[in-house]
Amino acid sequence: MLFFKKEQLTNYCSLVYQAAGVLKERAEILAASMVHASLRGVESHGVSRTGIYLKRITSGLVQPNAELSIEQNGRSGAILDAKNTTGQYASSEASKLAAELAEKNGIGCVGVRRSNHFGAASFYTLPLARQGYIVIAMSNAPTTMALWGAGKPYTGTNPFSYAVPAGKFEPVVLDMATSIVARGKIRRAWKKGEKIPSGWAIDKNGNPTEDPQEALEGYVLPFGGPKGSAIALFIETMAGVLTGAAFGPELGSMYNDFNKEQNLGHFFIAIAPSILAPGLDFEKRMETMIEQIKALPPSTGNEEVILPGEIESRIEKERAENGIPLEDDVVQELRDIGAQYRLNFPD
Amino acid sequence: MLFFKKEQLTNYCSLVYQAAGVLKERAEILAASMVHASLRGVESHGVSRTGIYLKRITSGLVQPNAELSIEQNGRSGAILDAKNTTGQYASSEASKLAAELAEKNGIGCVGVRRSNHFGAASFYTLPLARQGYIVIAMSNAPTTMALWGAGKPYTGTNPFSYAVPAGKFEPVVLDMATSIVARGKIRRAWKKGEKIPSGWAIDKNGNPTEDPQEALEGYVLPFGGPKGSAIALFIETMAGVLTGAAFGPELGSMYNDFNKEQNLGHFFIAIAPSILAPGLDFEKRMETMIEQIKALPPSTGNEEVILPGEIESRIEKERAENGIPLEDDVVQELRDIGAQYRLNFPD
Repeated sequence: MLFFKKEQLTNYCSLVYQAAGVLKERAEILAASMVHASLRGVESHGVSRTGIYLKRITSGLVQPNAELSIEQNGRSGAILDAKNTTGQYASSEASKLAAELAEKNGIGCVGVRRSNHFGAASFYTLPLARQGYIVIAMSNAPTTMALWGAGKPYTGTNPFSYAVPAGKFEPVVLDMATSIVARGKIRRAWKKGEKIPSGWAIDKNGNPTEDPQEALEGYVLPFGGPKGSAIALFIETMAGVLTGAAFGPELGSMYNDFNKEQNLGHFFIAIAPSILAPGLDFEKRMETMIEQIKALPPSTGNEEVILPGEIESRIEKERAENGIPLEDDVVQELRDIGAQYRLNFPD
Repeated sequence: MLFFKKEQLTNYCSLVYQAAGVLKERAEILAASMVHASLRGVESHGVSRTGIYLKRITSGLVQPNAELSIEQNGRSGAILDAKNTTGQYASSEASKLAAELAEKNGIGCVGVRRSNHFGAASFYTLPLARQGYIVIAMSNAPTTMALWGAGKPYTGTNPFSYAVPAGKFEPVVLDMATSIVARGKIRRAWKKGEKIPSGWAIDKNGNPTEDPQEALEGYVLPFGGPKGSAIALFIETMAGVLTGAAFGPELGSMYNDFNKEQNLGHFFIAIAPSILAPGLDFEKRMETMIEQIKALPPSTGNEEVILPGEIESRIEKERAENGIPLEDDVVQELRDIGAQYRLNFPD
């Protein structure tokens, strides 16, 4: 385990992408997205993804520098065709546009089609919450998850994030997979040779499994039973069906399909509280709610009531100070990747 | 158990409310909301609620005929002050307004403050989905549920509904409580003298319980662990904090607080696919998705893959034909209520 400064990793990853031909601004967004996740303890979406992103870029399956096209059909809504650029660049633009539409009209939404894996969803919601917007982000994902009652997968682990500005407190921010766990966590268990808890996934024949390899060959289960399954389906609807992206089995897998693009879809909704309800001090009211919740007695076994995003925010503060820890295999992979471009990994 | 025609119950309940002084149009909406739930097998939000709604109306805690006030601040968003009229009337107006805003702008939202219990959320989402809109409805609810890690309750069982138009198929419609089960189901178990499964609720001291009475005196748990808890908190934020309604412990309980109004909040978002993405045949794409999902093999123990709302839709068809079954105690209560107004319950 080695520790790196946020700036070191951001700079290095950005240089790697630039060396692979990605425009500087877009390389910086890609790097910032991964470091955002690593900084907040979400290793599964962190700098360990550099290799796979790069592989798809260098093999031409992602066109990182493609020009976006935006159709604004309603005053408050738009569809952004990502033209197969990175999910990070497309989503960064789409989420900002949703906030601009919200600033004009109270609420705004932007759907994204023909996109790719967008990394950690909170990378889009959290910065806009810091600017005063309530933001929702969702994405579909390659088929890996069995809907409630199904013996075969249909949706992916369709991520969902919201972030809400909260005055003197950090924004309240949820960033979750609609599976019981993120697939990345199973992948990490597999890399580490660890078992996974039962109930996380079923194998390709529909049997429960604790073997991460079998789980990766099989499929994960939705969180919260039929309710979570219905939420995952809604995300598929909004991000895939509504935007014109692929949905269900038509989606390309980032890890397995090297003969087609992913054609993922995302959906962003932003709300401007100051426009929608100008008579209220929304953030002051959020402070009141947070103070009330933090004052609740914890249940047995807990030391305090933790708000969504609070753990990640603490990890972020700690890692901004003491550095981001990376596993040896991740360091080695990053070093090897850079070496191809004669870039020196920071020590 | 007796069976009643949809029209019989709607007409009877409407006459009861009118006899209690509710304007005809609003009485009809109240009655239709309850019968909608009874028809779809959601007994907890069905005609069995007549007594409690009436009690709050006749005791002046709900002003059913109050004039709504609408502040439209953004082009696509509005806040509706329900002025303590019924949640059903306010929500019916608010959801229709959200759809009108979506028709103009692609997306629209309406927050409601100073409202009351709005019944089954699908009463608002489903009809608008039949008109081609994607609709989300949410409401906060009196404090009964412990957030993840908390030893005392903060939110209610904050309901969430979506409905999505689906061409030749029935709309896909979810209508759920963010608790593991709706509190109404615990109440019905208590009325029937039945035990509840463990994991549904904890008692007032924070211990697990299978006794519905202890559960009603204690509090229910969120679905899906910390994820579901974060979703319940988001609903509290949107429906309560953002709209200017009460939130958390400030909310009045329909069943327990007879000295104050509820001041509930609701939030509706509508999207017009034909405006947002006019180049796509959204409903045709929904048909494709539904056909793909229905063609999946079911998992062990299931006979088919069931879509959100499909069970309720089948119950609705069956009950529209064969009548709505009511328990004897519900029939007796309805009969007694009508007798006060010299109304004869249908036989």
